[in-house]
Amino acid sequence: MSRLYLALVHYPVVNRKGEVIASALTNLDLHDIARAAKTFGVQAYFVVTPVDDQRVFAERIVAHWTTGPGAELVPDRRRALELVRVTGSVAEAVDTITAIEGERPLVVATCARPQPAVIDCKALRAVIAGGRACLLMFGTAWGLAPAAITGADRVLEPIAGDSDYNHLAVRSAAAIVLDRLLGDNYSGR
Amino acid sequence: MSRLYLALVHYPVVNRKGEVIASALTNLDLHDIARAAKTFGVQAYFVVTPVDDQRVFAERIVAHWTTGPGAELVPDRRRALELVRVTGSVAEAVDTITAIEGERPLVVATCARPQPAVIDCKALRAVIAGGRACLLMFGTAWGLAPAAITGADRVLEPIAGDSDYNHLAVRSAAAIVLDRLLGDNYSGR
Repeated sequence: MSRLYLALVHYPVVNRKGEVIASALTNLDLHDIARAAKTFGVQAYFVVTPVDDQRVFAERIVAHWTTGPGAELVPDRRRALELVRVTGSVAEAVDTITAIEGERPLVVATCARPQPAVIDCKALRAVIAGGRACLLMFGTAWGLAPAAITGADRVLEPIAGDSDYNHLAVRSAAAIVLDRLLGDNYSGR
Repeated sequence: MSRLYLALVHYPVVNRKGEVIASALTNLDLHDIARAAKTFGVQAYFVVTPVDDQRVFAERIVAHWTTGPGAELVPDRRRALELVRVTGSVAEAVDTITAIEGERPLVVATCARPQPAVIDCKALRAVIAGGRACLLMFGTAWGLAPAAITGADRVLEPIAGDSDYNHLAVRSAAAIVLDRLLGDNYSGR
């Protein structure tokens, strides 16, 4: 079992114009990424937003599927959404992980735009397999704000497809990265 | 450039009880899978439903983003949704591909449940790289109905994560499979 944690960050992220914003929660981001996290044995999935109303909304969705009517109706969904931890900031998520793991996690940012210093998926896969606690951050909207990227310990290489098009949904990017880091099939370029 | 085509099938699929149904269209299935398809250089993305109203609905979404207000606002989304072909049946999609490619595509079903005879991602990757036209089918709801699976030429191996949990969203499964088949990093188990 890995000691990998995920965070889906709603602040600080950028909008289409590059302005720093707090983005709105998307129901399917919770479901899809929780299901992928459960598939690949992630320890917990932090949904990060500083907006009180949004945290209440997130908790309501999670409660519906973990202790409410959804839990009995679709037990598979319950198992996934039990991974969700609604959190006010990335720093809070880091503190929570530090308390659980007894060490500060390696904080890894993801970004679709090429960055100066990156770690590739193969190298990060080895770090995780070596037992290091890690927190992998994904940005909503147009991606993590520069402050979130420069504040991370590492930046993961962007996903390169077979085209010049790099506009994956965050749900798709998270699924691909988890498969590369924790799936049984990836061995790097 | 590969000759890979995708189909997202809304009929025949099964519901939670295993009954054959026509499922309802999901807006984000169109967007997320079109964006992943564009990222990995897929030729076209067939959205398959025999329900007239649902085809009209799908065409309206696609038109909004390809020729309507969305096209100018978010050109990246236009490029992805231009791949969508709304189609009444898998047979129609096969006929369309045959007309374009001059050969009947190899029809490959995907299924989260283990199947008797499967092709693994590495082998299918080699078939695609060899230039064979292929149609890869994903089922919505609880997956492709048995008739759709037995009618295919091949069944792709299920995605194994690091757990006994195999309930990925179809959007996540499609992203992972495209990365394994067309990404620059996959070399099999």
